[in-house]
Amino acid sequence: MSLMLEEIFDQPRALRRTFKAEREHAQSFKEFARQKDFRLIVLVARGTSDNAALFGRYLLELTTGIPVSLCAASIHTLYHARLDLRRAVVVGVSQSGEGTDINLVLKSARRQGAYTVAITNEARSTMAQLADEVFLVRAGKQRSVAATKTYTGQLLMFYLLAGGLGPHITLESVSEIPDRVEAALELAPSIRELVERYRYMRQCVVVSRGLNVANAYELALKLMETCYVVAERFSSADFAHGPVALIERDFPVIILMPPGKVFRDLKRLVERLRKLRAETLLISSTDVRLPAATRTIRVPGPIPEIYTPIPYIVPGQLLAASLAEVKGLDPDNPRSLQIVTRTL
Amino acid sequence: MSLMLEEIFDQPRALRRTFKAEREHAQSFKEFARQKDFRLIVLVARGTSDNAALFGRYLLELTTGIPVSLCAASIHTLYHARLDLRRAVVVGVSQSGEGTDINLVLKSARRQGAYTVAITNEARSTMAQLADEVFLVRAGKQRSVAATKTYTGQLLMFYLLAGGLGPHITLESVSEIPDRVEAALELAPSIRELVERYRYMRQCVVVSRGLNVANAYELALKLMETCYVVAERFSSADFAHGPVALIERDFPVIILMPPGKVFRDLKRLVERLRKLRAETLLISSTDVRLPAATRTIRVPGPIPEIYTPIPYIVPGQLLAASLAEVKGLDPDNPRSLQIVTRTL
Repeated sequence: MSLMLEEIFDQPRALRRTFKAEREHAQSFKEFARQKDFRLIVLVARGTSDNAALFGRYLLELTTGIPVSLCAASIHTLYHARLDLRRAVVVGVSQSGEGTDINLVLKSARRQGAYTVAITNEARSTMAQLADEVFLVRAGKQRSVAATKTYTGQLLMFYLLAGGLGPHITLESVSEIPDRVEAALELAPSIRELVERYRYMRQCVVVSRGLNVANAYELALKLMETCYVVAERFSSADFAHGPVALIERDFPVIILMPPGKVFRDLKRLVERLRKLRAETLLISSTDVRLPAATRTIRVPGPIPEIYTPIPYIVPGQLLAASLAEVKGLDPDNPRSLQIVTRTL
Repeated sequence: MSLMLEEIFDQPRALRRTFKAEREHAQSFKEFARQKDFRLIVLVARGTSDNAALFGRYLLELTTGIPVSLCAASIHTLYHARLDLRRAVVVGVSQSGEGTDINLVLKSARRQGAYTVAITNEARSTMAQLADEVFLVRAGKQRSVAATKTYTGQLLMFYLLAGGLGPHITLESVSEIPDRVEAALELAPSIRELVERYRYMRQCVVVSRGLNVANAYELALKLMETCYVVAERFSSADFAHGPVALIERDFPVIILMPPGKVFRDLKRLVERLRKLRAETLLISSTDVRLPAATRTIRVPGPIPEIYTPIPYIVPGQLLAASLAEVKGLDPDNPRSLQIVTRTL
């Protein structure tokens, strides 16, 4: 078994560990945040962690009412701009805590008046040392180059933070997430069979909407780095504004299709794709009737939309890891990559 | 000649018109903004206008020091979240001014305390009616489905706004942009010859960094919608965090490579791509020695980095329009698309 698959299967355990260790910390952050009266949340990350930040962007705006901005690191690291960050909390997200640019942004943000928070998997990392406060993901050492358990760990941390900062997320619901992941992992054998179909897939599009857009980005990234599939990533709204022109007969489109607010929009997209005779693969837990698609992965449910993102990435991770295997690739050694990437 | 090419060539005239009509308006906005003491700028858009907003995100943070956030429209249109937007200015960007979701966000933002601004090409549009203030792009009626002159018009408007809000952008420098575009348009015949090489290109990656990342996104979008090329878009820093694994011998990568702060990072990327034996196409105006690449498009210069984005998209637009022609496609009628896309 690849390290990647091992770490995918390790997720329920890792998530329980993180939940247990950080739930009270996140709750106590509430009082502190109230005193500080933050007016802006800035998230800064790269790669898989940046996809987690994209999730955090939606979740934190939805649950706290505080505007969130995804930081363009180069503004700080290359252009050395001075921003007014008083009453902002700047959250760096990095598995290793050694992303040079992310750490530079945190340093510069603090000089500009921000309170700085680190979400990292490494307690002794540079990032953990320099941030005002650390939320420690307890995913265990990441040995696979393709991040999986640290991504879901970062998502869980955003739930804990959102639960601390606003009334929408309850600890009880968050505590159920590891079980949902365990249930989703049961899909492994059927996904292993399913991927045979995509043995020769060279390109595809991954789409979702709202809270699951981050998962579309993350699944596309996993397909790029472990399977070398040229995988485009979009919110379904952006996809309709131009890129849908790509779609011709048999073009593969993967749609993460949660129940709730975004369902209707995604359903319309699937129906449109059907008319274009695209190949569609749905990932969904909904018990509502799904539109006709070429293939469907049923995530065990029901799951309220707001708690779908962690269980929904699991079939995506399994898909990428299994497809790499079917393509004869080693997902633990993607060409050209290392675990820690240093950029400025 | 396609409508798309006509509109590409119309850009110097359109830009001069917009500059002349709006320069004073933007200057007078300065005093108003100072009184309001905005603490946050939120940009909201879709498609090509969203790429213009991505440029605005960099330019406004760099020149005003006010944090900028790119809005996730669904937070407002589907999830109906309530955000604290006091002392925020929310800027909608839409060619037609009829993007249903963008207009909904503006309405909802105003209810939440924001001052609302429209950047649109249509004076009588819904967006122009509902915003507190309108900055009118004078690109003339857009008849091509693929937006070109309205994109550069929106970029110009962001320069005027940045010039109004901070000290870095001068009217004199902005007034030179139409001439730079005129000079870049001289590249048309050589680009028409060059694209023969890409007749059978099915996929590619477009990369840049900082102020030109928006152009990488925009060129990728143009290649998707007019040439049906599966074109991935990245900042070079994000590209290094995973997607670079896609690159194998002959994989085409287009790099927008301005002089200045981002040059070294992009140069390193080109050298890495060379080792991977990728096919590289550079777009650059720099007089510094460029790294070895398969092909290079020389944008007439010198141009200071901060003013490169408008002239740099011109060869990109010409590339997409010419490649569509060489592929026997009609760029004015991309399959599945209309000029106004309605999403929620």
